[in-house]
Amino acid sequence: MDLTQPESLAAADAARAIAAGSISSERLVDACLARIRAVEPTVQAWQFLDEAHALAQARARDRERAEGCPIGPLHGVPVGVKDIIDTADMPTENGTVLHAGRQPVGDAAVIAMLRAAGAVILGKTVTTECATYTPGKTRNPRDPSRTPGGSSSGSAAAVAAGMVPLAIGTQTNASILRPAAFCGVYGFKPSHGLIPRHGILKLSRTLDCVGVFARGLDDIALLAEQLTGYDPADPDTRPRARIPFTQTMNREPPPTPRLAFVKTPIWDRADSSTRKAFDELTAVLGARCEACTLPAAMAEAWAWHKTIMEAEMAANLDREWETGRDRLSTSLREQLGRGREVRALDYQQALARVAHLRGDFDALFANFDAVLTPATAGTAPPIETTGDPSFCTLWTLLGLPSISLPLMAGHDGLPLGVQLVGRRAGDARLLRTARWLVDQVQAP
Amino acid sequence: MDLTQPESLAAADAARAIAAGSISSERLVDACLARIRAVEPTVQAWQFLDEAHALAQARARDRERAEGCPIGPLHGVPVGVKDIIDTADMPTENGTVLHAGRQPVGDAAVIAMLRAAGAVILGKTVTTECATYTPGKTRNPRDPSRTPGGSSSGSAAAVAAGMVPLAIGTQTNASILRPAAFCGVYGFKPSHGLIPRHGILKLSRTLDCVGVFARGLDDIALLAEQLTGYDPADPDTRPRARIPFTQTMNREPPPTPRLAFVKTPIWDRADSSTRKAFDELTAVLGARCEACTLPAAMAEAWAWHKTIMEAEMAANLDREWETGRDRLSTSLREQLGRGREVRALDYQQALARVAHLRGDFDALFANFDAVLTPATAGTAPPIETTGDPSFCTLWTLLGLPSISLPLMAGHDGLPLGVQLVGRRAGDARLLRTARWLVDQVQAP
Repeated sequence: MDLTQPESLAAADAARAIAAGSISSERLVDACLARIRAVEPTVQAWQFLDEAHALAQARARDRERAEGCPIGPLHGVPVGVKDIIDTADMPTENGTVLHAGRQPVGDAAVIAMLRAAGAVILGKTVTTECATYTPGKTRNPRDPSRTPGGSSSGSAAAVAAGMVPLAIGTQTNASILRPAAFCGVYGFKPSHGLIPRHGILKLSRTLDCVGVFARGLDDIALLAEQLTGYDPADPDTRPRARIPFTQTMNREPPPTPRLAFVKTPIWDRADSSTRKAFDELTAVLGARCEACTLPAAMAEAWAWHKTIMEAEMAANLDREWETGRDRLSTSLREQLGRGREVRALDYQQALARVAHLRGDFDALFANFDAVLTPATAGTAPPIETTGDPSFCTLWTLLGLPSISLPLMAGHDGLPLGVQLVGRRAGDARLLRTARWLVDQVQAP
Repeated sequence: MDLTQPESLAAADAARAIAAGSISSERLVDACLARIRAVEPTVQAWQFLDEAHALAQARARDRERAEGCPIGPLHGVPVGVKDIIDTADMPTENGTVLHAGRQPVGDAAVIAMLRAAGAVILGKTVTTECATYTPGKTRNPRDPSRTPGGSSSGSAAAVAAGMVPLAIGTQTNASILRPAAFCGVYGFKPSHGLIPRHGILKLSRTLDCVGVFARGLDDIALLAEQLTGYDPADPDTRPRARIPFTQTMNREPPPTPRLAFVKTPIWDRADSSTRKAFDELTAVLGARCEACTLPAAMAEAWAWHKTIMEAEMAANLDREWETGRDRLSTSLREQLGRGREVRALDYQQALARVAHLRGDFDALFANFDAVLTPATAGTAPPIETTGDPSFCTLWTLLGLPSISLPLMAGHDGLPLGVQLVGRRAGDARLLRTARWLVDQVQAP
């Protein structure tokens, strides 16, 4: 472990070093802030960052350790937080001028969990407008002419740029996996209902999920482990035992995993570098990977996702529509306009069809450990958009855990994400399969 | 216990007599069938009744007992079942010509529970058209020129007419309490989510509840106790311990109950005999009852109920609309037509407002054991309608347990129901409060 460049440390290593007293949280946070000062003018990942407040938190954590207080698994480790997640000590502006200067009175459930684990809330990362499609200011650290992806743009970019080892974001369509893939980091969206969403800008109860970013699988597991739990304020969470992500991930998979390579009905959107990369990957995996075709009826799922997302967004952003739709982007205004006209009949039928679809996938997961599929259609496009979300849509709709692994590159040398999708509530086993896949690809 | 007229026995007494061997199930069922033969031409409570099949079930129960098999709490006791509840051995026609002759392949969850408790499924009782507003053939046993109420018309009438000691029905607006009140029997609708609904014609996930009819509180408790439980096929049920309804109901209430007399914003619909009856009742109760006014905003709740019910009915009866709307009543066709045009925005906002409303009532129930309010606007009107449902609407919308007690009469001598409403999941305590109230009113 190289402690001379603390900003490069994995979070798991940093947490161990802080616990052991070989480095202070203040030193780590100070190094992250220095890195931010160096690259933020190009990357622009942060919506709110108060250096003094970050350092004060770090010193408080160091004091607690010095005083012999019990310390948590993330004690002293900085985390970036998407600016749609409420923080009692920092503004939360939801990426819209309508909420400029908005200061929440309390922490979101996940912020309280992070603080309980000892984390330093470093600052708030840039989100697209209301976590939808209109880009914020953030650039892709791998190529500033490209989008970092969205909507969790700043969280992915900050981790990729070495500004912070961990960040959290949210996904309603592709907002964790797409930016992770474009920026070349790990991005994990656990099963719907695993991480409580109270205190986060609500777009869609059916689709919204919290997710995590890191530069390695150990850090993904470490962070995810702190965030699952029951919250009576989130009606989709359930009382259940904490999931030992790290422990399960690091176990040897009992039988060697089998992957289902699923092109999905939108395969024609995948560009040539994506097709080539997946040809090579599936060749490496050989018999461990089998191409599977989804039933043709599955092609309708993208339309159901749109119906559900737009109808629920229209209800959840009704106040914004009523009080300031002229200050929303045209794209969001059009989206909300469509959502307001969705019939309850079509909305309910889409929900019912999705419930039915979930059953179909149970059969697939009886034979395979995970689905293997691209996270995006290709590498990051120019900054005008946040890229095509469609390779994530189906899995978000189904509420399945999914992870993007930065294992490949396109013709332009920019990162391509490998998406693995697990069975519902099979989150820890998905990470175990991901670790196995990373080992296969990176084996000497 | 008078065993010479078994059809008049309370279910609890009949179950004890059968368990003790002092009467056979066959003798009891035979007596019920004789009573049905005598009064069915006037009352018309049954949609399907196969005497031989009922007697065969009774003889099978008698054989089991004779052979020393373990017997359930309802062993050998006949129960009437609303004809929207699937039975594998009898047709289930849902009160519409569109489903004439429909034979389900399986039992509804509650039917399986009744059979497990040893009950004899006596037959299927008349429902209004698709459990909505258009009356079936049933007449009020107290006065055949009047409606029995709906939609569980046959279940209430069969119990009131002494044809069967127990019956089950459903309520989406007022379909348990209203017929119970009009027919002068006890009708209990437990909290939403307490009794699984799988295998029952689905109108509205948000509102549909199963409920029970009997001629006394002991029988209400006995029957309800058999029907609660978790069913993965009903997403609103939860794993929980069985509720000891009978035991809790028969305990002395620790402090003397306090009732909140709530006139609701629709009090002007209550007729003069209802007003007079409640004046007298609250006078008898004195300090144990306090008049409470609901916030004026509550008046909107009836509109939210309509939005939710019609939107969900339109989705659940979409196939009936598409394949046979010309064979539905004008009233149902109009209702479905409106429901199909409800916007997802208004539907979701109604759901959100109801969730908020529930919080307001928690405060009320912190100070009172139950709400006291009429079950209906007055006594049963003529047979052209099933009567005004509005005195039940609010409580159904809130998912609260409610019971109608046949304690009063109108100017015309016909029954008036006293409605008691308890806190959510406070079902057993509501029955305890009901027992206390019955004792107050019937005290010599």
